[in-house]
Amino acid sequence: MPHIALNNDLPGITGLMVHRPDTGGPLGDLADALLRAPSSLEPGERELIAAYVSRLNGTEFCASSHGAFAAAQLTGGRELVRDVLADPGTAPVSGRLRALLAVAAEVQSAARPVSDKTIAAARAEGVDDTDLHDTVLIAAAFCMYNRYVSGLATELPEDDAYYQHAARRIVADGYRAGIVEGD
Amino acid sequence: MPHIALNNDLPGITGLMVHRPDTGGPLGDLADALLRAPSSLEPGERELIAAYVSRLNGTEFCASSHGAFAAAQLTGGRELVRDVLADPGTAPVSGRLRALLAVAAEVQSAARPVSDKTIAAARAEGVDDTDLHDTVLIAAAFCMYNRYVSGLATELPEDDAYYQHAARRIVADGYRAGIVEGD
Repeated sequence: MPHIALNNDLPGITGLMVHRPDTGGPLGDLADALLRAPSSLEPGERELIAAYVSRLNGTEFCASSHGAFAAAQLTGGRELVRDVLADPGTAPVSGRLRALLAVAAEVQSAARPVSDKTIAAARAEGVDDTDLHDTVLIAAAFCMYNRYVSGLATELPEDDAYYQHAARRIVADGYRAGIVEGD
Repeated sequence: MPHIALNNDLPGITGLMVHRPDTGGPLGDLADALLRAPSSLEPGERELIAAYVSRLNGTEFCASSHGAFAAAQLTGGRELVRDVLADPGTAPVSGRLRALLAVAAEVQSAARPVSDKTIAAARAEGVDDTDLHDTVLIAAAFCMYNRYVSGLATELPEDDAYYQHAARRIVADGYRAGIVEGD
């Protein structure tokens, strides 16, 4: 049972964003800017970083949601996402994406500078300043979204089909739109 | 030296937000919604929670900035902020605020439900659902801001007077305005 009463019975962060549009608005805008706006990283790659950080944080709602959003936008689909969440070190992704996932894991672990070694390994794979900025901020942002969802003990969806439905909606309309629609 | 080159030499998150207004905009809007919009918690109390989480995360730029913003808006001023950051258990704050700082510390420590014991202690001090929501989201958000600032190894200001100057500006104009002004 969630720690606070909501004005709806939507699961995870969706219920919180609909309940509190004052904060849900900026949270949705930030997700759209990070995960959907034009970037040197593909939307599916960015969703994969978000899902991976959420898995490291143990926030199942976000790991499953963003895993589904990544699968809907990556050639490798659900198998690739499953492999990355299990072990990015052996999953069949590019060296560049693997290096960015390592950056994200360091950001997840603590608020301290990403190590020079991890930065150098990413640079060796062709990672530029924009890739690094976006990866660090996506990983940092999911340390927020995950704590918000888990800290308040929100509900998981009753049915796993929820994530597939949400994926179609998010890919079509984005994050901010979700709090208006409310489903 | 920061891990990425910025288009300005402003310290901490200010440099990042001016460099990247696409993400700086939503980050500023979120800070304004959390720390300055009408709420059952005073702006100074919310800044104190932000400063405390930043101190726990070891992000000195954010702890000093939000500590200065709290001091500028709380009757106890800088002494009170210093006492809370050192040990909220003995600092001269209300039982309600002390209970909310304990909630914030649990959110900072990991992405997991705040314990029933900490929630019950807060309820016993008169904390309501809105206080709880806002405290959890402020603590979660500073786990993001802190990781963004520390992960990219941004610079600290050269002079401590920076924080007092920033406090006057933020109290007068808010967070989003800072990325337009850029100082």
